[in-house]
Amino acid sequence: MKTSVRACEMQASPIRKLIPFANIARKKGINVFPLNIGQPDIPTPQPIMDAMRNFPQKVLAYSPSQGEDYLTEAFENYYKANNIDIGAEDIVVTTGGSEAIFFAFLSICDIGDEVIVFEPFYTNYNGIAFETGVTLKAVTTYAEDGFQLPSADEIEKVITNKTKAILICNPNNPTGTVYTRDSLEELAAIAKKHNLYVIADEVYREFTYDGLQHTSILQIDGMKENGILIDSISKRYSACGARIGLVASKNKEVMAACLKFAQARLSSPTIEQWGAKAGIEMDPSYFEPILQEYQRRRDTVMNGLAQIPGVVCKVPKGAFYVIAKLPIEDAENFAKWLLTDFSHNNNSVLVAPAAGFYANPGRGKNEIRISYVLEVEKLRVAMLTLAEAIAQYKKVENNTNEKVNSANA
Amino acid sequence: MKTSVRACEMQASPIRKLIPFANIARKKGINVFPLNIGQPDIPTPQPIMDAMRNFPQKVLAYSPSQGEDYLTEAFENYYKANNIDIGAEDIVVTTGGSEAIFFAFLSICDIGDEVIVFEPFYTNYNGIAFETGVTLKAVTTYAEDGFQLPSADEIEKVITNKTKAILICNPNNPTGTVYTRDSLEELAAIAKKHNLYVIADEVYREFTYDGLQHTSILQIDGMKENGILIDSISKRYSACGARIGLVASKNKEVMAACLKFAQARLSSPTIEQWGAKAGIEMDPSYFEPILQEYQRRRDTVMNGLAQIPGVVCKVPKGAFYVIAKLPIEDAENFAKWLLTDFSHNNNSVLVAPAAGFYANPGRGKNEIRISYVLEVEKLRVAMLTLAEAIAQYKKVENNTNEKVNSANA
Repeated sequence: MKTSVRACEMQASPIRKLIPFANIARKKGINVFPLNIGQPDIPTPQPIMDAMRNFPQKVLAYSPSQGEDYLTEAFENYYKANNIDIGAEDIVVTTGGSEAIFFAFLSICDIGDEVIVFEPFYTNYNGIAFETGVTLKAVTTYAEDGFQLPSADEIEKVITNKTKAILICNPNNPTGTVYTRDSLEELAAIAKKHNLYVIADEVYREFTYDGLQHTSILQIDGMKENGILIDSISKRYSACGARIGLVASKNKEVMAACLKFAQARLSSPTIEQWGAKAGIEMDPSYFEPILQEYQRRRDTVMNGLAQIPGVVCKVPKGAFYVIAKLPIEDAENFAKWLLTDFSHNNNSVLVAPAAGFYANPGRGKNEIRISYVLEVEKLRVAMLTLAEAIAQYKKVENNTNEKVNSANA
Repeated sequence: MKTSVRACEMQASPIRKLIPFANIARKKGINVFPLNIGQPDIPTPQPIMDAMRNFPQKVLAYSPSQGEDYLTEAFENYYKANNIDIGAEDIVVTTGGSEAIFFAFLSICDIGDEVIVFEPFYTNYNGIAFETGVTLKAVTTYAEDGFQLPSADEIEKVITNKTKAILICNPNNPTGTVYTRDSLEELAAIAKKHNLYVIADEVYREFTYDGLQHTSILQIDGMKENGILIDSISKRYSACGARIGLVASKNKEVMAACLKFAQARLSSPTIEQWGAKAGIEMDPSYFEPILQEYQRRRDTVMNGLAQIPGVVCKVPKGAFYVIAKLPIEDAENFAKWLLTDFSHNNNSVLVAPAAGFYANPGRGKNEIRISYVLEVEKLRVAMLTLAEAIAQYKKVENNTNEKVNSANA
């Protein structure tokens, strides 16, 4: 009995595939710092947990496919406070941000249609494109300039008559880049010119550092018809396990289509909608200490990287990720080696090789993604461990290369 | 800005699309009995609600993509008690049964592949097929013999080189039919002969009446490689809003594929997995009073239908649905008329026109689906209301037909 071709071609998660090696290292007694996944360690806010614990209904029933009214209304108020023009009626609540992208793709793309992304990009976009028969066309961005958006020329080069949308993640996972209003306006102009949607994944909206203001795609002129917003409470309120996100647009046809796809999966989890409402209604001052903490963490990672000769990495301004180009050849081998052949003071680190975040083969081979969702002191030791590992690994690579060279001689 | 062709072609839920008319009737003060949706009114068991209220973690984190170990292990024990050979390692936990079917389709079908279903069938199979580029080939079953499976000949007629699976729902939504072991063995033989999977949606497993035993597809010889089980806690524990289901198979390749698709949506809701475990570990005696209650409800509906001249409906043996063929011409017009132009003793009923459960055009036009998820006394009044409505509507139809005929004369 065979499985489908798409099942064979579907990639396993590059973020999660090294976990078995980490488990083996841990069984050997090595302390492995997890720098691979974006699972915040900040406790979920008490109002959310309390609301879910006091869920008032006796029957845990389906919620409406578009989400509970009280939740879409809470989001409307949240967007109003953030100067984003989205009403309750412009929202379909989704089971996480992933499902929001899934509905957006289905609503605007037929099988074989194309969506432009900027690599490195969030790897699950691949999976969702695969599931929906959409082809991602990746335009490369570079560590050297902090992964800024490519020029209009570079973007227009990949537009075909099958292109339906440009998908951005802002603040960006995996690069941490926050796009300026100017670059969003340029992107919007390209979209308008070519009749494309801009799908903006803004789940890290609050996570901007050094006083930087975030700009939403829906704050850009002319994006009412073309802009589609992806959002989620997962990162904002350390509530990844709640699986509550949303897709929103002022484009009524897009939202009517999203609702039909939402009906095919009935509803998002009910209790978490009750919890999410409590989170969204918290005072925004909730974020202040959390942002300060994340900024300290980012600074700890950047200070650590600055001590390692040959690393290329601009200071990221948002989210809680860094893509670092390392002075080694193959980050996938390195990441595995960290878990199978290395420890320093009984420590090692689990990182995500960045090649999995690129679509064009060969790109990002010497890059890794670091998530800074650990306490500062742990991050400090993790970065020292990484520095020592790179120093040791360069010798391993040199030896291997010499052996290969002499074998070829 | 256009939406996709598939978004335009995607059907709105036939179960939910009359709700706006019901709301208008209710605003006029009419008491509308909801016989349209499968949302049980039985309270969610206390152990599930208590577990969720006492969720012990401070960070509401992602769960593993395949589900929490404690949950898959609880399911293993549940299946063992039901004489179904499924281990924890054969399971991927999903966000409701809908997602389980979605993963199954993606894992075994490429775009354009075909899956055989028996109409009338659960309407959301359509949506999921649409999303995954799968074509459903529907073989008709009939009210006259209680919607039993078609003969092997009838089934083999629609098999092509693109056919990958046969999808059944047992006990059946929307017909209430429970397939016998003999008919499952016949189906399995066809599947083996043509190298097809059998996907069995068994979310209503416990809901069988008159002492009938349910047979799982995985209890049929030879179905280890070919059988794929769809399951969910939604109906079993009145926990539709929890969104916890699973896909399971002894076929390792299928499960490895399902896991990759599961990774693309990260995880199912976390707190509900904790709750689901508590539900699954309840003593099976929990079901006894509930089954008695549903059987009384079914009998109430059947007694009501028996009083209406011209209705065709065999006694269904499972789930909590009945498809009834009515002595009228167009059930969709009738269902709308019930809400816009009818009331009896200030009551009316909301039913699901059955045409939406058929794929072949014109089928099921004079049939409705009734869900019996209301208390017996309410159902009794609802059925009297329906009887009165049919008597009145036949006159309306006759008048309309006469007018049409005289207009054509």
